Amino acid sequence: MRRSASIGVMPIIPFDRTSQVPFYQQIYEGVRAAITSGRLMPGQRLPSTRTLAEELHISRYPVFSAFDQLLQEGYLDGKVGSGTFVRYNIPDDVNRPIGARRPAPGAASAPVAPSTPDVESEREHGTGPLAVSSPALDHFPTEIFARLIRRHLTGPPELLAYGDPAGYGPLREAVVEYLRTARAVDCDASQVLILSGSQMGLIVSALALTTPESAVCVEEPGYPGARQALGAAGATIIPVEVDSDGIDVAALARLDRPIGLVYVTPSHQYPLGMSMGLARRLELLRWAANASAWIIEDDYDSEYRYSSRPVGSLQGMDSDGRVIYLGTFSRGLFPALRIGYMVVPRQLVERFLRVRATLDIFSPTLYQLAVNDFLREGQFARHLRRMRAIYVARRDALLGAIQEEAADVLTVGNTDAGLHVVAYLGDGIDDNDVALRAASLGVFPRALSSCYMTSAVRPGLIMGFGGSDESVLRGAITTLANLIRNLE
Amino acid sequence: MRRSASIGVMPIIPFDRTSQVPFYQQIYEGVRAAITSGRLMPGQRLPSTRTLAEELHISRYPVFSAFDQLLQEGYLDGKVGSGTFVRYNIPDDVNRPIGARRPAPGAASAPVAPSTPDVESEREHGTGPLAVSSPALDHFPTEIFARLIRRHLTGPPELLAYGDPAGYGPLREAVVEYLRTARAVDCDASQVLILSGSQMGLIVSALALTTPESAVCVEEPGYPGARQALGAAGATIIPVEVDSDGIDVAALARLDRPIGLVYVTPSHQYPLGMSMGLARRLELLRWAANASAWIIEDDYDSEYRYSSRPVGSLQGMDSDGRVIYLGTFSRGLFPALRIGYMVVPRQLVERFLRVRATLDIFSPTLYQLAVNDFLREGQFARHLRRMRAIYVARRDALLGAIQEEAADVLTVGNTDAGLHVVAYLGDGIDDNDVALRAASLGVFPRALSSCYMTSAVRPGLIMGFGGSDESVLRGAITTLANLIRNLE
Repeated sequence: MRRSASIGVMPIIPFDRTSQVPFYQQIYEGVRAAITSGRLMPGQRLPSTRTLAEELHISRYPVFSAFDQLLQEGYLDGKVGSGTFVRYNIPDDVNRPIGARRPAPGAASAPVAPSTPDVESEREHGTGPLAVSSPALDHFPTEIFARLIRRHLTGPPELLAYGDPAGYGPLREAVVEYLRTARAVDCDASQVLILSGSQMGLIVSALALTTPESAVCVEEPGYPGARQALGAAGATIIPVEVDSDGIDVAALARLDRPIGLVYVTPSHQYPLGMSMGLARRLELLRWAANASAWIIEDDYDSEYRYSSRPVGSLQGMDSDGRVIYLGTFSRGLFPALRIGYMVVPRQLVERFLRVRATLDIFSPTLYQLAVNDFLREGQFARHLRRMRAIYVARRDALLGAIQEEAADVLTVGNTDAGLHVVAYLGDGIDDNDVALRAASLGVFPRALSSCYMTSAVRPGLIMGFGGSDESVLRGAITTLANLIRNLE
Repeated sequence: MRRSASIGVMPIIPFDRTSQVPFYQQIYEGVRAAITSGRLMPGQRLPSTRTLAEELHISRYPVFSAFDQLLQEGYLDGKVGSGTFVRYNIPDDVNRPIGARRPAPGAASAPVAPSTPDVESEREHGTGPLAVSSPALDHFPTEIFARLIRRHLTGPPELLAYGDPAGYGPLREAVVEYLRTARAVDCDASQVLILSGSQMGLIVSALALTTPESAVCVEEPGYPGARQALGAAGATIIPVEVDSDGIDVAALARLDRPIGLVYVTPSHQYPLGMSMGLARRLELLRWAANASAWIIEDDYDSEYRYSSRPVGSLQGMDSDGRVIYLGTFSRGLFPALRIGYMVVPRQLVERFLRVRATLDIFSPTLYQLAVNDFLREGQFARHLRRMRAIYVARRDALLGAIQEEAADVLTVGNTDAGLHVVAYLGDGIDDNDVALRAASLGVFPRALSSCYMTSAVRPGLIMGFGGSDESVLRGAITTLANLIRNLE
């Protein structure tokens, strides 16, 4: 049974008592969709939790939970129990410290998992101290994963044959489930393509959606591997500056030519690390709908978030089917796996599938089978929980070392997510020079200026903390601080 | 020590008594290179085997072996022992039945191995009876390969990290060794890129070498998956007809616009199955050198050759560095592996590597390690020998069934190599219609007309015999013959 609740200023939200989707989640998603679609306007008052609970004939607890989550995510203002309103100014940063609050339900409460664009030319993927995009491979549960591989090694001959270019069916279903729970992505398995790494999603998008006449916007600064891939079909790449809230949509709207595609990293901007606030997300989605532009949301490391609650995906807020969502298992599992995925708007699925098949036909079957088991048996969720604690410790060691030993030469930027931080250098310092000298000393930060198409606003170093333990990180910062102090 | 032999009309060939390369092979390769480079001209008489042996201070046997091989391959004319000449008309078909002759040494004597372009949209890669490109997966040595995989499953964490986009170094070396021995490919490991299937080599070539202004020639009829991939960067695809000797180079030369790239399958034309003779090969290489065009040599199934001796690769005859060589392990091992490789002219290596990294960064490490062991431990050579016997039996069963049950409706074309044959239908029959009806009966030949960009000269069916055993093949032909006879 599906019934609609219309209470006070509450717009109609779908609610189904017989659904397996928990009540709080139905309410959370219904209200959120109403806000993001504009059916609930800023300043509108929501009914009390009591009223809504009575209207729906359910207990008050799930309503309370849903409102709490919406408050925390910055969709609502006020106080649960004493009047809640749709926020006027949806804040720049909707992420608030979790602190001692009990876990809230809904999209953000489940274990959050892997995705990575962190690619560029692979030769930039070193494994030494401070190298960007390296997960903690020394903590990977090799034995568990090996057991899953062994299970499929001597399977039936059909598993050796050509597979589905869209990916192994059960894995696509498992990815849907994971993305729905952890990232509030709204899709079914027919929209999921399993890729040989998320980088492939960029090439597929470029070949499917662009021509030499196209203009593609990327974040400035941004992920260099995206620029390279998105230009593969000859499109013009246009850098659009980011501010503290992500890509500047007003600047995007002012461009004097039609834009077909925009590449963004809203969960954790690469490289600067901020997340895109709700207001900016809605602005971006509105712009894309008006401009008939496609958005690539590269959710490359949303599984690792430390001091704030993850916002759901941009894809899940999009009611116009403009968002192509990219993710990867390179960080959640390991890079040598080469398994990523994309979620494609329905009307693009056929076209994307054709291009994907042209690239490498399909991804190796054995790993798809093993990852499917890893997800379905709960190993993935367990692994991510373990890894989050390890990364928090590594991040804290890195930040501590910078504060203690390098505060005079390095100024740290955003630090609450992912596996890297940006540390700014003093004005006038050549970050490429520093990165080169550091490499010769066995330390591998990346120059921030390498992420700019135009000239960098401020020199800096991108430092990965995922791949090295605490003592290595501290040693690397000592080396780096000495190097910077001794630049002539 | 390296000494040069200059005897009679014999041009200088490199010869090194201390080399590990067998004497016969040094002589074979030296003379062949002299012929293909034009240093030895048609009609020139070679010294007698006795004279050459004396001059080189070696026994007569290796000289005799080398000349015998060159005679068999059609480079020389005459009779070993009574005067040999460089052939005037290098024959259309240099492949002669081996019959009862003892195995000759040189490039063609070693086990020949895997490579496959057989891609298209993967959905065309069925696994049912007569499906093209399916190897005999029921005979794959699963246990042996599983043992190699297990060996690397719990290796050091570095194996989980990002790998070299060019491929795992030792595997690249092993591929060089295999290609040198089995396919007379002339390269070193720096020119080898390991790919996620050979299909990826087509996309890499298209993105690295073409723009929307480019013209790319393909064989007509030809491999549809190549057309799709080679057009990825917007190039114009021009079909050039094949005759009984492969692509018509004269027609290529008559085109009124510059051609940047040509795609050919000289070992075993897809789909028609003939091999390109020596004269045509030399003509093609000369044309490419003059036109500054690149050639993609897709050596997709040269490992399986039954009644004739394989010719070496086009790449090995090319003294101008114009040939990009593609191969795959999809047929020699199995398709779900997704490992192929390309050999790239030196001046293109950097450019190709950059593009390859943009596509999917690198191929999964685990499989690269296992394939490397499989090659180095001799498993690959053993496996290919076993498979050749199986494929001969399957091919013979298919041909026998056609002769006995379908000779009135199917006329078989070339049959001495690969895993498929083409059987022509009577004029006026719609092969797409036959293929569709066949699929509804559980039999999956491919319509020959699907390989044409223009209209097909003659309707036909491409039938794979690799993936089904003899009784299944016979049943499929019975079904097909009845279907064709009953077309209204």
